[in-house]
Amino acid sequence: MNIPKSFASDNNSGVHPLVLKALADVNHGHYTGYGDDPFTEVAIQKFRQLLGKNIEVFFVYNGTGANTVLINTVTRSYNSIICPASSHINVDECGAPGAASGCKVEFVYTEDGKLTPELVNSMLLGIGFEHHSQPKVVSITQSTELGTLYSLEELRTLCDFCHDNNLLVHMDGARIANAAVALNCTFKEMTTDTGIDLLSFGGTKNGMMFGEAAIFFRPELAADFKYFRKQNMQLHSKMRYISAQFSALLTDELWYKNARHSNDMAQLLYKELQNVIGIKITRPCYVNSVFAILPEKVIPRLQQKYFFYVWDEHTNEVRFMTTFDTTEDDINNFVKALNEELGRQQSEPASLLRG
Amino acid sequence: MNIPKSFASDNNSGVHPLVLKALADVNHGHYTGYGDDPFTEVAIQKFRQLLGKNIEVFFVYNGTGANTVLINTVTRSYNSIICPASSHINVDECGAPGAASGCKVEFVYTEDGKLTPELVNSMLLGIGFEHHSQPKVVSITQSTELGTLYSLEELRTLCDFCHDNNLLVHMDGARIANAAVALNCTFKEMTTDTGIDLLSFGGTKNGMMFGEAAIFFRPELAADFKYFRKQNMQLHSKMRYISAQFSALLTDELWYKNARHSNDMAQLLYKELQNVIGIKITRPCYVNSVFAILPEKVIPRLQQKYFFYVWDEHTNEVRFMTTFDTTEDDINNFVKALNEELGRQQSEPASLLRG
Amino acid sequence: MNIPKSFASDNNSGVHPLVLKALADVNHGHYTGYGDDPFTEVAIQKFRQLLGKNIEVFFVYNGTGANTVLINTVTRSYNSIICPASSHINVDECGAPGAASGCKVEFVYTEDGKLTPELVNSMLLGIGFEHHSQPKVVSITQSTELGTLYSLEELRTLCDFCHDNNLLVHMDGARIANAAVALNCTFKEMTTDTGIDLLSFGGTKNGMMFGEAAIFFRPELAADFKYFRKQNMQLHSKMRYISAQFSALLTDELWYKNARHSNDMAQLLYKELQNVIGIKITRPCYVNSVFAILPEKVIPRLQQKYFFYVWDEHTNEVRFMTTFDTTEDDINNFVKALNEELGRQQSEPASLLRG
Amino acid sequence: MNIPKSFASDNNSGVHPLVLKALADVNHGHYTGYGDDPFTEVAIQKFRQLLGKNIEVFFVYNGTGANTVLINTVTRSYNSIICPASSHINVDECGAPGAASGCKVEFVYTEDGKLTPELVNSMLLGIGFEHHSQPKVVSITQSTELGTLYSLEELRTLCDFCHDNNLLVHMDGARIANAAVALNCTFKEMTTDTGIDLLSFGGTKNGMMFGEAAIFFRPELAADFKYFRKQNMQLHSKMRYISAQFSALLTDELWYKNARHSNDMAQLLYKELQNVIGIKITRPCYVNSVFAILPEKVIPRLQQKYFFYVWDEHTNEVRFMTTFDTTEDDINNFVKALNEELGRQQSEPASLLRG
Repeated sequence: MNIPKSFASDNNSGVHPLVLKALADVNHGHYTGYGDDPFTEVAIQKFRQLLGKNIEVFFVYNGTGANTVLINTVTRSYNSIICPASSHINVDECGAPGAASGCKVEFVYTEDGKLTPELVNSMLLGIGFEHHSQPKVVSITQSTELGTLYSLEELRTLCDFCHDNNLLVHMDGARIANAAVALNCTFKEMTTDTGIDLLSFGGTKNGMMFGEAAIFFRPELAADFKYFRKQNMQLHSKMRYISAQFSALLTDELWYKNARHSNDMAQLLYKELQNVIGIKITRPCYVNSVFAILPEKVIPRLQQKYFFYVWDEHTNEVRFMTTFDTTEDDINNFVKALNEELGRQQSEPASLLRG
Repeated sequence: MNIPKSFASDNNSGVHPLVLKALADVNHGHYTGYGDDPFTEVAIQKFRQLLGKNIEVFFVYNGTGANTVLINTVTRSYNSIICPASSHINVDECGAPGAASGCKVEFVYTEDGKLTPELVNSMLLGIGFEHHSQPKVVSITQSTELGTLYSLEELRTLCDFCHDNNLLVHMDGARIANAAVALNCTFKEMTTDTGIDLLSFGGTKNGMMFGEAAIFFRPELAADFKYFRKQNMQLHSKMRYISAQFSALLTDELWYKNARHSNDMAQLLYKELQNVIGIKITRPCYVNSVFAILPEKVIPRLQQKYFFYVWDEHTNEVRFMTTFDTTEDDINNFVKALNEELGRQQSEPASLLRG
Repeated sequence: MNIPKSFASDNNSGVHPLVLKALADVNHGHYTGYGDDPFTEVAIQKFRQLLGKNIEVFFVYNGTGANTVLINTVTRSYNSIICPASSHINVDECGAPGAASGCKVEFVYTEDGKLTPELVNSMLLGIGFEHHSQPKVVSITQSTELGTLYSLEELRTLCDFCHDNNLLVHMDGARIANAAVALNCTFKEMTTDTGIDLLSFGGTKNGMMFGEAAIFFRPELAADFKYFRKQNMQLHSKMRYISAQFSALLTDELWYKNARHSNDMAQLLYKELQNVIGIKITRPCYVNSVFAILPEKVIPRLQQKYFFYVWDEHTNEVRFMTTFDTTEDDINNFVKALNEELGRQQSEPASLLRG
Repeated sequence: MNIPKSFASDNNSGVHPLVLKALADVNHGHYTGYGDDPFTEVAIQKFRQLLGKNIEVFFVYNGTGANTVLINTVTRSYNSIICPASSHINVDECGAPGAASGCKVEFVYTEDGKLTPELVNSMLLGIGFEHHSQPKVVSITQSTELGTLYSLEELRTLCDFCHDNNLLVHMDGARIANAAVALNCTFKEMTTDTGIDLLSFGGTKNGMMFGEAAIFFRPELAADFKYFRKQNMQLHSKMRYISAQFSALLTDELWYKNARHSNDMAQLLYKELQNVIGIKITRPCYVNSVFAILPEKVIPRLQQKYFFYVWDEHTNEVRFMTTFDTTEDDINNFVKALNEELGRQQSEPASLLRG
């Protein structure tokens, strides 16, 4: 098959060869299921080395699972979750966190996909008033769904504000590796040290086959997690196969290399697109996504060659994602195809352009 | 490492080499996520070839997920689920089906883990009466958690009774391959032809790494499944890696070979245990489990060498499971170790035998 | 209208005149809603005088609400509730406690509708094991749905056992007044002093129009109740109208007089029925219910004159309930009507008796 | 007691004498519980006379219950509910509709508390896309929480748009009588004839003691309602006492007289407040509420004499509600007290005005 690379999502890519090798390497013998095996212990230790000893780590199947089980564990159904309107938990999880926990999702409109103390504060109403859902968790995404980043200082300030208001901070880190690369900081500096309470640590979008990590920075909150993980259908029996993948990702900085490459490819695409006439780049490029507005007719034609998502149906803004295995050739071919479609469109009689 | 095989569960085993190879074989290029890829289409076609064209097939992460999302899709929260008290959904899923759907789980005590029309009928009370949860689904396991089997005739009779009473029949087929081998019948004869409405088709316990199939035999019931799969955190992004495993399992009857071997090893163990003095075999052996009562003191000692579960804490009944990679040597070594522990126990002064 | 009294349920009766008067007495002026009014404060004080100072009292709409919100408040969705199979929460609430809390309801078969430490113990499996719902609340009914009673000693023993096993004890007191009369004890002796943790205190079945009380004997458990009461739709705006009813019920022992009369009428019915030929009394009479098996054909005929429920469709066991306004004449007329139907049936040709 | 009237909410008032009389009038004899009684039949017929024969009517305890059970009945957990951000179901029900149904609540910011087709359309994203909650119900309030009204034409247009987009329209009619009076139209013109699908018909805020009606204009949607009403703890046993109240309210246009008076008193207050110096009226007065901004220090002082709610903590906007038993004297005394506090504040040294 000679299918062009996709620019739709980092989960359209395959699995990194070292991750695949790790799966084969643990494929021998019998081990107790559900996490009571030596490979899982090793993987958890690797997380502790990165983030500090005083954490609790659990593996789950996917990002929606990590977000939902974490939130479910620390809330009661009368609580609410404050998050940006553009966040994955608000838009792309078919209501999973709310349905599992019973909580109300209070979404906040924000241009850049980021929350601030002021925005959080605007949702802090009716505290102690039984008629109103009680805010408990503030959920942010790093890097955000719009490709933006919280600086370490912004994270600290936001966490401080939340803790002062009895709110826990959850970070959806589906693309946390891309964020760490972009900010040139360690995971620990970005989470443990800024005051993050709960973390969904992404694996699948950075070269793994399946599996995410749910991490508690305040271990006393983690006691019930195992029950919710099971009840929420996120407990894998042959756990060693998730653990081995994480161990591979956290060995020799594979996570860094993958994210570094992915970010670099996005920068290349971003640079190349600036020379393309007839489109409008809409957001800065910090991590592995580029956003642009394309002429309406060009979109479906280009999608026949390269799959990607329309981000905003009303404005024709589209999103291009790069990944660990995107190549410079992929970028160049893609930009070429885009230019072709743009040229073809311009040469068409205007009458054809009305649909 | 030279760890002895486990007799605890078929999910303590690894992944069959052909399944692992299938994962490597699809590890190239980019494909659309969430099931809209050619590998998933192939796997679904293989299921249609086995079970008939008129089915809907969805892949999920695990057995609890398959059971729960299927039940969730076809019920409202005022419904109830009738199942044996010994069933996995009643005992081993931390309440997942009830918590996700809101339904009441009406469990029925039954010696052999099997439901009959009479037992189901005993739970059909208050139909149309708003004070009482309304029965909607009868869930059975094939083969059962106690290692027993429904005959094709029993399945037909039960399905007919249920349909006459407006009940859907769900089969938890976590070990459906072992059942098909034991009954010497096809999957289609056991499900499509007997009137099963919903099927959880197991993969992980028969040599896969992760992934189960949720199957509807009445496609009109399946329309909402995709939303519940997503909301219940069972939708995998890199779907090709589940699909490829199922394709491998359903190619050249790998499913049969694995289950055949597993059942044969259980028969061998069953035969060998009959010669062991000081234990009591408690159930017939039809598939890949053997149940026996062991002297209380022998259990923890043997568990230090071979991991297995105590099935009934009150009677000291234990369960031994075999799997696709259990060998004759494993059986012989295990029986030898058991005999050693039994001998050691008998030679001890009686006073020591009191705890 | 000259409709005969019903023997179906104590909620088929009207409202006691003193309760109605209390409603009129508070019907003046404006008061803050939702419980922050002086009448509610008075009613709560009356409960504290009866049960001790160290309790928290909340008013809700109905018995299902009291049971469900109490259970919801003290559990997480991975917990289970242990109760008799015949209990109201298991059979007659359309799954409300499980649907609201997500908990699994573990029902136990018991001849007399009562739990014992042994029966509770039989459900204590898989403690700490994440695959299994974790028992948290034991729910009993006093007097039970079968008209039986726990003695004070039985309550103490059961509560002690439960507390030793980290279980909370909830008492469904829909007919707690009838129980207190029958046991000739105070409410405090039956609840506070035996170790009950949570109590649904019934009003509607003892002469009120609407309203029940949800009571915590361990105030530290009550902190979240107000949020669950609101979310579970059990918070009344014009609260004074519930509070005034309870104040009336708890003034001059109206609760006692009503229940005393109701129990006495049941005793009279019980005595009279012993002289009726052709029926079989099936249970002892302690409170305000009498159970008997009637000839199948007699049931619908008698129901045309007097409404009552068939308790067991398989055995033709029926239940007769008396209430605060049942009179001796009502009893005598009812027994007369029963005798007439029995006589009519016996004089019919046998062929007619086949349906 | 000589407590001044409250301007906090129409539920701070008592019960209309004719409603109280109706309760006494049905307080005789025994009747089958849960709605199978002649008084309930009469009340339902009165609703059918008002709204048309082709409706289904159910009585529940309160407004949150009516809204929640209606929404629960017509949705699955993967659906979403679109409503104004200021709506009762979004702000004042502690998350009840979402927690009971599992649905996501998609709230829309709107100045006047009203939805338009354009605003609804802005939330119609990801239709058919399993990652996104699927819109199913549009919930509006008439009159709105901000005291505004949808015209009949606006209702028709909105209902048409919703039906064209496979959305059901729910009307929260907690103050529907005030709206009908203000629009000078019948209930039928406002609901049946505009295309409303589901209606919460308020009673408590218009002179009743407890009870609301949940009404389906498309009877085929109502089949499951009875089960959800029971499971959601909204089924009253002694139903005649809700039914009798509704019959009283719908007899001789008591509903109209109460709402007419309430609206008139608000108009009087509105007029009087326009002459008060030092406050700012913030919204037009259509029904029985008046909104105004008061000097910050005046609010708590006035609240010591007259209870009312601060509507917006950031702007010091307060809400005054009138009710069926507010008198002209109440208004005059209230305005007098307000003027006194305003004068007192102005005469204070400025330094005192800083908190």
